[in-house]
Amino acid sequence: MRVGGAVMSLSNLRIVLVRPQYSGNIGAVARAMRNMGLSELTLVDPAPLQRKQADMMAVHARDVLDAMSIQPSLRAAVGDCGLVIGTTCRPGLYRDSAVSPRDLASHIVAVAGENRVALVFGPEESGLTNEDLRPCHRLMTIPTDASYSSLNLAQAVLICCYEVFLAAQKETIPGTNSLAIAEQQELMYEKFKHALLRIGFLHKDNPEHIMFALRRILGRAGLEERDVRILLGMARQIDWYANGGWRQELGAPQTEKDKF
Amino acid sequence: MRVGGAVMSLSNLRIVLVRPQYSGNIGAVARAMRNMGLSELTLVDPAPLQRKQADMMAVHARDVLDAMSIQPSLRAAVGDCGLVIGTTCRPGLYRDSAVSPRDLASHIVAVAGENRVALVFGPEESGLTNEDLRPCHRLMTIPTDASYSSLNLAQAVLICCYEVFLAAQKETIPGTNSLAIAEQQELMYEKFKHALLRIGFLHKDNPEHIMFALRRILGRAGLEERDVRILLGMARQIDWYANGGWRQELGAPQTEKDKF
Repeated sequence: MRVGGAVMSLSNLRIVLVRPQYSGNIGAVARAMRNMGLSELTLVDPAPLQRKQADMMAVHARDVLDAMSIQPSLRAAVGDCGLVIGTTCRPGLYRDSAVSPRDLASHIVAVAGENRVALVFGPEESGLTNEDLRPCHRLMTIPTDASYSSLNLAQAVLICCYEVFLAAQKETIPGTNSLAIAEQQELMYEKFKHALLRIGFLHKDNPEHIMFALRRILGRAGLEERDVRILLGMARQIDWYANGGWRQELGAPQTEKDKF
Repeated sequence: MRVGGAVMSLSNLRIVLVRPQYSGNIGAVARAMRNMGLSELTLVDPAPLQRKQADMMAVHARDVLDAMSIQPSLRAAVGDCGLVIGTTCRPGLYRDSAVSPRDLASHIVAVAGENRVALVFGPEESGLTNEDLRPCHRLMTIPTDASYSSLNLAQAVLICCYEVFLAAQKETIPGTNSLAIAEQQELMYEKFKHALLRIGFLHKDNPEHIMFALRRILGRAGLEERDVRILLGMARQIDWYANGGWRQELGAPQTEKDKF
């Protein structure tokens, strides 16, 4: 398929499993990925891997298991990604901003033409925590019957890969710009949180509440590097001001913001 | 949701597993069904059921296992259905007439408003045989990466249920007429085969080859009872003629065909 004039594949897409508990599921995920043309799998802090159980479910996708990466934190697993998508089936804080795989699939394929993209899935029993969802730029929820919304892990991965695979079949997808990688975005958010705490905009007891909302809004925007530079400048400026900079305001026209 | 003016659910949809070998898969199928709002499961000639293994994978969908039916033949499993859809991932005789779950989903939901519909899946290792596909009116193939097209059984069921579930979310779907049940259609096809063999249209060594093509064509048409009556009449007329009826032709204007 062609994206923005260049031939692309799904090779920029990474499946990330956070704290997976059952090796059989990891194998079933590998098979589902290969069925849909994906190959890059990363585990974050998994339970001890029973390779034999994983192999049994992977069948002809053991190469995915051979090549998979294991990382100590989600941040490390998605640091180089321009778009990080967290999956959730639970309602909650800003989780209602989640969209369906079908609605997001074309966007994922378009972004994956120029950027690394991670699809993040939580542990079998509980799903992703709010802390896990923090570094995610977008949230995705698979539509299900209301009476039983919890899918098996490999089943959830399959649906998402299937939608992306089908979206990638379309011949031409408009390209997107190069997005800021997740690690750059994280540093910006940290600076923002620090600054907004300083000025009392965030509650000291629960700063993440508002930060989560901010992440969702900016996540939908799809931040490019220059956007992150501007936002980081803004955060620094707030911090500078809170740090007593206002005292020199009249005598110090050179602000952080002027650098951009 | 509403179909043809009447409120409907997916309760007219039946998942049929032909000769399933692994009880874990049956449990995973039950869970996938409940995730997508389906509940009627039928097994055809399964390997001995290990209920404990099935329960483990079904998790909160054990009620589907409690209620499932076990039948000795596919014909018995789908006899009351107006539309029988076989799934296949292998190319072969007329299998290229298979359509994707997404393309067929709205049709399935529309037909299920007035008729029982069966989605039929083959054994894990080999899929449905040509003989299994015979009573199927339509064929469905899940799009996959060419390098690994064989999905796990429960994964295949999930994709099909997911597409039907999403199609059923659409508020209004045009209704369809009442279709002839599979058993009526089977009797018609048998009569046809008999008649076409008689007149030498089918090869004695391999009558199913052409019959298979005929089934695919008529299957796409969606046969109603009156259609089946007409086709059955045609088959009888051919047979009557081959049986020597032509000898009385001039003197016997009363033919089978006149009855319709």
